[in-house]
Amino acid sequence: MILKNCRIVDPFFSIESGYIEIEDGCIKNFGAGRISKGEDFSGATLIPGFVDTHMHGALGFDTMDRDENGLRKIEEFLYSKGVTTFLPTTISCPFDELIETLDFIERYKEKYPFSSVEGVHVEGPYLSIERKGAQNPKFIKSPDDEEVEKLLEYKETIKVITIAPEIENALKFIKIFEKSGITTALGHSTATYEDFLKAHMAGSRRITHFFNGMNPLHHREVGLVGAGLIHEDVYVELICDKVHSTPEAIKLVFKNKNFEKIILITDSMRATGLEPGEYELGKQKVIVDETSARLEDGTLAGSILTLDRAVKNAVSITGLPLNEVLKSAVTAPLNSIKLYDRGRIMKGYKADLVLLDDKLDVLMTIKNGRVVYSV
Amino acid sequence: MILKNCRIVDPFFSIESGYIEIEDGCIKNFGAGRISKGEDFSGATLIPGFVDTHMHGALGFDTMDRDENGLRKIEEFLYSKGVTTFLPTTISCPFDELIETLDFIERYKEKYPFSSVEGVHVEGPYLSIERKGAQNPKFIKSPDDEEVEKLLEYKETIKVITIAPEIENALKFIKIFEKSGITTALGHSTATYEDFLKAHMAGSRRITHFFNGMNPLHHREVGLVGAGLIHEDVYVELICDKVHSTPEAIKLVFKNKNFEKIILITDSMRATGLEPGEYELGKQKVIVDETSARLEDGTLAGSILTLDRAVKNAVSITGLPLNEVLKSAVTAPLNSIKLYDRGRIMKGYKADLVLLDDKLDVLMTIKNGRVVYSV
Repeated sequence: MILKNCRIVDPFFSIESGYIEIEDGCIKNFGAGRISKGEDFSGATLIPGFVDTHMHGALGFDTMDRDENGLRKIEEFLYSKGVTTFLPTTISCPFDELIETLDFIERYKEKYPFSSVEGVHVEGPYLSIERKGAQNPKFIKSPDDEEVEKLLEYKETIKVITIAPEIENALKFIKIFEKSGITTALGHSTATYEDFLKAHMAGSRRITHFFNGMNPLHHREVGLVGAGLIHEDVYVELICDKVHSTPEAIKLVFKNKNFEKIILITDSMRATGLEPGEYELGKQKVIVDETSARLEDGTLAGSILTLDRAVKNAVSITGLPLNEVLKSAVTAPLNSIKLYDRGRIMKGYKADLVLLDDKLDVLMTIKNGRVVYSV
Repeated sequence: MILKNCRIVDPFFSIESGYIEIEDGCIKNFGAGRISKGEDFSGATLIPGFVDTHMHGALGFDTMDRDENGLRKIEEFLYSKGVTTFLPTTISCPFDELIETLDFIERYKEKYPFSSVEGVHVEGPYLSIERKGAQNPKFIKSPDDEEVEKLLEYKETIKVITIAPEIENALKFIKIFEKSGITTALGHSTATYEDFLKAHMAGSRRITHFFNGMNPLHHREVGLVGAGLIHEDVYVELICDKVHSTPEAIKLVFKNKNFEKIILITDSMRATGLEPGEYELGKQKVIVDETSARLEDGTLAGSILTLDRAVKNAVSITGLPLNEVLKSAVTAPLNSIKLYDRGRIMKGYKADLVLLDDKLDVLMTIKNGRVVYSV
C-alpha cells in the first residue's frame, strides 16, 4: 500500500508533502516529493496513531464487563478516533473480578493478536479512600503479599498499575511492580511531597490523571501536583477535556513539562460516543451530560473524551504545532509502557497510522498496515 | 574610591577578578585584571545593592510608627544586610494614619536625600477581608474617589499599592493608579483567574507576596497563583524564607518565571533583627520565634527575613549562580518600580554596591559612593 501527496507529521519531524509505503504491517519506505504509484491523499496529514493508556470504556461497554463483543466495539470506536494502541482500564472491584478481567484480556489478546489492546491499566483497588473520586470505596484496600503475588502472574498483561503511595505496604509493592516491568502510577492519593519522594525512590515515575484525585498544590505542601511540575523525570497523565481542569491548568502543565513526559489520556467511561443520560461506573450510577460524566454528588466519574478531541484541545490551548502535541499523544504514552516498535514515521516501524483532515478530524486509520477505519 | 582584586558579579555578567572606581556617587570605571591603585578586596565579591520593595520594619521599628529615628535605624540595619534601596511598607489603618505616614516619608526623604528610602509600598486597606492574612480586618475597605484623589497627591512617593482586584471599584482605581505611574500589585485577594484577567487588562502587572494571601492553585480555578505562573509579563513578589512557602514551591516559581519577573521581598516586620518574643503589627499581637512571626491564631504576620538571607536561600534552593538570583533581588524590584539609575555594574550607574564574602555574607555596603556599612 502506498499513500502519496500527504503532509507527514512525526513527533520529531515533518514533511510538507510526501509519500509512505507500507508492507507486511510495517513502514517500508517514506519520503518527500512526488512519486507515480500510490493513492493520492492531497490535503491530508499522516501521523502515527494515538495511544490511550487510560480508558475504561465507550459505546456502552466497560472493561469490567469482560464482554468480548463489547471490547471489539470499543476497538472499532477508537479506530474512528485515531487510536491504534490502548490499555483497557479496570476500576476498584473485588479481587476475583480483577483477576477475571485480566484473564479475559489475556484470552482476548490471544484470540485477536493484531488488536489495538496492548494490555491493562489496573486502576484500583490500592488507592486512598479520601481521594477515591468515582472509585467505589467499598472495594478500596491496601495491597498484600498474596494479591500482589497473583497479580505478578499477569505481568505481561498489566502495563500500568495506579497506586496511592501513602497507603499501607504501597512502597514495598511499588518497588516489586517496577522491578517486574509494570509501570506504577501514583494517583487517587493524598500523598505529600515527602510521600512522593519515597515512591520516586522506589522507582515510580508516573502520576495518574494529574490534578484529579490528588490534593491541590499548596505552597507549604506541594504534594503530587508540585512533584509532577518540578520533577523532569516524571510522566503525568492529563485529561485534556477542559472539564477535569481548565485551559490555564493545562497550559501550566505544558509550560512545566517536556511534552514527552505528558501522557494525554481520555479516562473515558462507557457513555463515550453515546448520548447524555444515566450510566454506570464501578457499580455506581453516573449522570452524563454534553461534556462530562458525574456521580450523583457531582464528582467527576471518568470522562466522555476521545483522544482526537484531546489532541485538538491541546493544540488550541497551547498554540503548539501538531508534532509537539503528538509527543504527548503518542511518544509519551508509548515510552511510559516501554513500547518502542511504533509511534514514529520511520522505516521498519509498525504501520499504525492515521490520516487527518485540516480540522484534525480522522479520515482514515491504519493498524498493522491494514485500513481499519475510513470515513 | 577604588576597590580592586574582587570578583564582580552584575545580574548580566561577571568578572573573575577586577576593579571598580567610584566618583561623585557613581561608578566611574571598572574592568578585569589588576591595577596599582586602590584597596585590595581579594576573595570578596562585588555586587549591586539589594532592593526590598516590601518591608514593614526591623529592630523594633515599623513604618507605621512614623519615627524618624526608627527609620534611620531600619536603614542602617538594612545596609548591614546589603539593601541599598527599599520601600517602607504600610498596613491597613485609618485613612488619616496612612496619609500621616506618607507625609512622614516625604519629609524624611527631603531631610535625607541620600537615604535608601525610595518611596512607600501601600499595602492595605483596599484588600479582601477573606484573605486578610495579618492585616487588621477593622480597617480593610474598598477604595473610593475621595481617598484615591488624596492618594494621587502622593504619586511621587507611593511606588507600589497592593489591591485586591475583585473588591468594589478596584478595577477603576487600578487603571487610575497605573496611569499615574503607581505600580499596582494584586494581593490579599480571592481573585479568580477571570478577576486577574480584568486587572491585567486594567494595567496591573504585579502580584503581592505570591502564594500568600491568595487562593491556592486549583486545576478548575487557577486564580492568582496560576496567573502568576503562566503570564510571562507579570512580576511576582516572593518571600524566600522557607516558611511562607516550601523550597519546592520556590523551585516552581523559579522554574516558571523569567528571573527578571521574580521580586524577592522580605515582608519583614519589626521583630526582624531582634530576639524571639511578643511584638505588634497593625495593632495586633504577634508572636515571634526563631523562624517566623505569627498572630495568636498561627497566621503568618510578615516575616523576620532579611534580603541577604533570601538571596542565600534562593541560591541554595535553585542551584542558580549568584548573578541569576541578583535578577530577582536587584533587577526585578528596580524595574517593577521604574528605577533605572542603579542596579548594574556599569559606568554612570549609582554606586550602590555591596561586597560579599564567600558565604554570601555582607562585608561592606556602599550607598551613593559612600561606605555606609563595614564589618
